[in-house]
Amino acid sequence: MKTLGIDHVALAVPQGQLDSMLAVYQTLGCRILHEEKVYGTDQVREVMLQVGDSENMIQLLEPLSPESPVAKQVEKNGGRAALAHVAFRVDSAQESFDLLKAAGVNIIDAAPRLGGSGATVFFIHPKTHPEGALGVLYEVVEPAHGKEE
Amino acid sequence: MKTLGIDHVALAVPQGQLDSMLAVYQTLGCRILHEEKVYGTDQVREVMLQVGDSENMIQLLEPLSPESPVAKQVEKNGGRAALAHVAFRVDSAQESFDLLKAAGVNIIDAAPRLGGSGATVFFIHPKTHPEGALGVLYEVVEPAHGKEE
Repeated sequence: MKTLGIDHVALAVPQGQLDSMLAVYQTLGCRILHEEKVYGTDQVREVMLQVGDSENMIQLLEPLSPESPVAKQVEKNGGRAALAHVAFRVDSAQESFDLLKAAGVNIIDAAPRLGGSGATVFFIHPKTHPEGALGVLYEVVEPAHGKEE
Repeated sequence: MKTLGIDHVALAVPQGQLDSMLAVYQTLGCRILHEEKVYGTDQVREVMLQVGDSENMIQLLEPLSPESPVAKQVEKNGGRAALAHVAFRVDSAQESFDLLKAAGVNIIDAAPRLGGSGATVFFIHPKTHPEGALGVLYEVVEPAHGKEE
């Protein structure tokens, strides 16, 4: 797979703690790019932070209710902030999908699909391959063309 | 702080699983840059992977014994691979250190110190600031001059 770099690192944070983190992230050289709330089964507030002037981002995911899958990630980690996933950036989600499928990689999505900010994305299962599990959820992201967010 | 981007994401992996991960990471477009074993109190095998041709890296940390601090990170996460830390790259570790100290950030190291591959590094406590805890261990890395590894 032709990977361009890390697109973002997504962190699940305990409910009620995201706001107090934002000023601290700004002290560390990050700035807020985008914020949204997703209801339905996701029940999550997402804030995307740019790391310096780079193309790398930190995505903070805060549960909007205890039923959110993000709340369960925090709970599994003893109530502490937890890694939700790491996202790699690619030129073509479809080409990457086809190549990984052919290599026997365990992909969660049936096909690349629309992600946040107009990106095309798919997720790779933590039980990544019969030969080896990375144990971490990876996302593959083709950014929307014409913008990098 | 003038942050240049994500230097690396460090993942603690269960003992005995690192080797099987390497081929899978190569399928995802990563390549092995560096490997070392650190004994003493650390008891860890470290493999640094470059993500595509970018300056972003994934660092895999595998305990060499059950007494390794890395083994405890895996254990705390229910025996699964866990986020060890996220490292931000900077031009000057000393300037970043001084700026964060002045901003009241809770820094673990008394001063910037020598890290892997000749880098100058320090770690920020997960209880980051009286005003807000990021809940995640952050490292600040000034790469060795003349090489980016």
